[in-house]
Amino acid sequence: MVDVRNVLFVMCDQLRRDHLSCFGGRVHTPNLDALATRGVRFEHAYVQSGVCGPSRMSFYTGRYVSSHGATWNRVPLSAAELTLGDYLRGAGRVATLAGKTHVLPDAEALARFGIEIESERGALLREGGFAVVDRYDGHTPPGPQSGYANYLRSHGYRSDDPWSDYVIAMEDRGTIVSGWQLRNVHLPARVREEHSETAYMTDRALDWIGAQGDRPWVLHLSYVKPHWPYVAPAPWHALYRGADVGPVLRGMQDGTAEEHPVVRAYREHDECRSFAREEVARHVRPAYMGLVAQIDRNVGRILKALEKSGRMRDTLIVFTSDHGDFLGDRGLGEKELFYDEIIRVPLLVYDPSTKADATRGCADSRLVEAIDLVPTFLDALGIATPFHRVEGRSLLPLIRGGGIEPWRDAAFCELDYGFRRARRSLGRGVRECRAWMVTTSRWKYVHWNGMRPQLFDLEADPREACDLGADSRHDGARAEMHDRLLDWLSNLNRRTTIADAEAERRTDAHRSHGIHIGIW
Amino acid sequence: MVDVRNVLFVMCDQLRRDHLSCFGGRVHTPNLDALATRGVRFEHAYVQSGVCGPSRMSFYTGRYVSSHGATWNRVPLSAAELTLGDYLRGAGRVATLAGKTHVLPDAEALARFGIEIESERGALLREGGFAVVDRYDGHTPPGPQSGYANYLRSHGYRSDDPWSDYVIAMEDRGTIVSGWQLRNVHLPARVREEHSETAYMTDRALDWIGAQGDRPWVLHLSYVKPHWPYVAPAPWHALYRGADVGPVLRGMQDGTAEEHPVVRAYREHDECRSFAREEVARHVRPAYMGLVAQIDRNVGRILKALEKSGRMRDTLIVFTSDHGDFLGDRGLGEKELFYDEIIRVPLLVYDPSTKADATRGCADSRLVEAIDLVPTFLDALGIATPFHRVEGRSLLPLIRGGGIEPWRDAAFCELDYGFRRARRSLGRGVRECRAWMVTTSRWKYVHWNGMRPQLFDLEADPREACDLGADSRHDGARAEMHDRLLDWLSNLNRRTTIADAEAERRTDAHRSHGIHIGIW
Repeated sequence: MVDVRNVLFVMCDQLRRDHLSCFGGRVHTPNLDALATRGVRFEHAYVQSGVCGPSRMSFYTGRYVSSHGATWNRVPLSAAELTLGDYLRGAGRVATLAGKTHVLPDAEALARFGIEIESERGALLREGGFAVVDRYDGHTPPGPQSGYANYLRSHGYRSDDPWSDYVIAMEDRGTIVSGWQLRNVHLPARVREEHSETAYMTDRALDWIGAQGDRPWVLHLSYVKPHWPYVAPAPWHALYRGADVGPVLRGMQDGTAEEHPVVRAYREHDECRSFAREEVARHVRPAYMGLVAQIDRNVGRILKALEKSGRMRDTLIVFTSDHGDFLGDRGLGEKELFYDEIIRVPLLVYDPSTKADATRGCADSRLVEAIDLVPTFLDALGIATPFHRVEGRSLLPLIRGGGIEPWRDAAFCELDYGFRRARRSLGRGVRECRAWMVTTSRWKYVHWNGMRPQLFDLEADPREACDLGADSRHDGARAEMHDRLLDWLSNLNRRTTIADAEAERRTDAHRSHGIHIGIW
Repeated sequence: MVDVRNVLFVMCDQLRRDHLSCFGGRVHTPNLDALATRGVRFEHAYVQSGVCGPSRMSFYTGRYVSSHGATWNRVPLSAAELTLGDYLRGAGRVATLAGKTHVLPDAEALARFGIEIESERGALLREGGFAVVDRYDGHTPPGPQSGYANYLRSHGYRSDDPWSDYVIAMEDRGTIVSGWQLRNVHLPARVREEHSETAYMTDRALDWIGAQGDRPWVLHLSYVKPHWPYVAPAPWHALYRGADVGPVLRGMQDGTAEEHPVVRAYREHDECRSFAREEVARHVRPAYMGLVAQIDRNVGRILKALEKSGRMRDTLIVFTSDHGDFLGDRGLGEKELFYDEIIRVPLLVYDPSTKADATRGCADSRLVEAIDLVPTFLDALGIATPFHRVEGRSLLPLIRGGGIEPWRDAAFCELDYGFRRARRSLGRGVRECRAWMVTTSRWKYVHWNGMRPQLFDLEADPREACDLGADSRHDGARAEMHDRLLDWLSNLNRRTTIADAEAERRTDAHRSHGIHIGIW
């Protein structure tokens, strides 16, 4: 029996788990809290990379970064990679997009295969397999796949570039200033709340869902907020101004250990220089928190519409984020690296099936990963997952209970900082900047190309303040985690061009093809 | 200055290094010996897999098996993989094929991209980027890409399937018998020497080279012999009958250690059951040796023609094999696994450049790999190697001397036995049967998925008779080799969709695109 007809996959950009009230955070998120009450809250959900592009490619392909190969932002997704949209299409379904994906097409392959980017096939490769309602990746003016710029102009925001002039701009005593500058984020955006990025994309989703009527659907609603520029429209810009924005965590607390060279190099980036000043963090956080509250309000609009149309009865809903934001913690800004602020994301799953009734409102502390969503969606829709490609596992057995095979006891994450200034300051080549993390419930271990590892004892030091990577008392833990990394890397899915069932059929089958090896 | 205009890349199938007289073997190979005298003989050349398909895909892509993904025979080469032919084409050159490649097209990708297999693009993907003079993969009747069947019929071998009826058939006291049966390989093939597989493909190569005149060319001449069926035409079938075929090595010599479970499972395969009988090994080896001698003779025909036409002055010549053959050593038959009989192959490189004069006739004992040939060919032809994809290194600095960066001190090889009967007898799934080998000049270490490792001390035990994989006295060596495997696996080329120079250009470049991260 398949209870689920529709999937709503909501993603935020740069949303920190610990900011939502349902995850114990300071931002009041009543709509997400209500969703958590009706679904399962995953307390240890890890993304496969702490930066947008590679993290999203893992969400969309169900594969680790070392498998899909798009190791950083704007690295094209190989044409050989299949995505959620491709898997759905194979079963006669369509994955639709409203919002951001960060997919860049594999132009070299398109040229080699003679596929025009504007053709139907080319468009699918350009959009990562999604059918596009409105694609808008954020943090630059909306492109031709988005109607946002025209929408803004039609609502009176007169400009060739209404995004730069209104959406991320503010007025400061009569002067127009830019939200790119952190000093300005206490001011409201020049765009009204109902025309802001979050509201606009919510409208597109609501219109599209409404237009589907009773036809089954899969929608990826992908907000570009609370990602920088940290510009919130009124009244959200002011909601948390002056409120308690929490402590700003310091960096290393073990005076004896030397900070890891890559972390040190990141501190020289512009965003870390700014956020290392506690007053900057305290100035920015209220704007960020307001953007989060605004997202909650807009998700509430969607949930209300689904309730009204009866779609809560047959729609699987996932709410998550591609990674977090340091917001000044550890004296760092932005994202990347492997701390929980960045790679441990919020994940809520609402499953309408009566089989999920027993877990409603529960927290699940097992280690789950971004790559688990593709197999979860396919499982919910009754579509077989091709596990010779997909490396995640369906979460439905966790949500619906019943006989579960042993669940994973480690999660993995990767980084390629070859595109960052840190590479140059460390004097490394573009292919010498990779890192691989494995975390268990006890240890978090990072293997850095050409440098010492990092190690954190998550039980004794849950805030990861003390890097034990060079501590001789922990040789055993490092060796164990090192072994886990080798097992994981060696067993990534390489043989992607034939399915497991075909491999099974071909096993020991040469005689049936008239080939007789070594018979006397 | 580029001295090399042409490349002749000769490969044999299943040719054991230690059988050629230039590598100390018992088969007299005067033509190859002469080539060795004029070029460099690589004493420690390793293939990336001990089975045809994955080994060849590494030769053609310049990438390890875990990177190209074609882990066993008849696993299609992903459409995202580029080959020697693709790299040459990017520089206006063509790689031409006469013989075997074992490439299978990525039909799923072709369908997804709307590429007809018979189109120009489809044909290139089907042929692994080669332009085909005659493609013939051996051990089954020649297919439509080969003219061999018609050639045989035009020379009087009347049959719908002249390959089965003549090329691999013999007459035994008036009865036609099959070369599939090892018992028959002392008999001559029913095909005449000049119409045999090796002679036919040599003719195709000679004709084609002759037709090029003064135009530069790249030819992959790829013999299907001495691979089974071990059927040699007269007089080669008899040349070594009754001769000394060498000792037949026993298996494990350390009575205390238990044989590795995968090796034990391989012993149950048909070919190992046959070759475990020493009389079978001694019966087959003379036929195999005759086939090797015949290849030497035919390579001699090519070399003579190149000499005559002046092409020895501007042609880089490589002679190698895709892997070896146990021929009864260790009580094993056929190939796979990681012993030197299989994965350490003959490799001769003749470089016409005067810069190579100092090394003519030399043996080089550095560790080289099959993946080094693509960058060697490109280097010789003055074409830049895209090292964000290619994982090998040009051999020219070894041959021509001069400033060499430190050379590698380890070589790597892989196995996927998921398609073999051994998988079933060990009760494993199709994705649980992989193994990874690393060898240095001292240690050979094999990491098996879910099983104990193998370890051989190549200094104390060059014949790899004593498996130290479970010997507690060697924990240190195992740990060191384990680390090497992790370093290797983690640093394989994953980011293949943009070149290193582009990554270099994009480093820290967001500000130039109007993106201002974290500025106050």
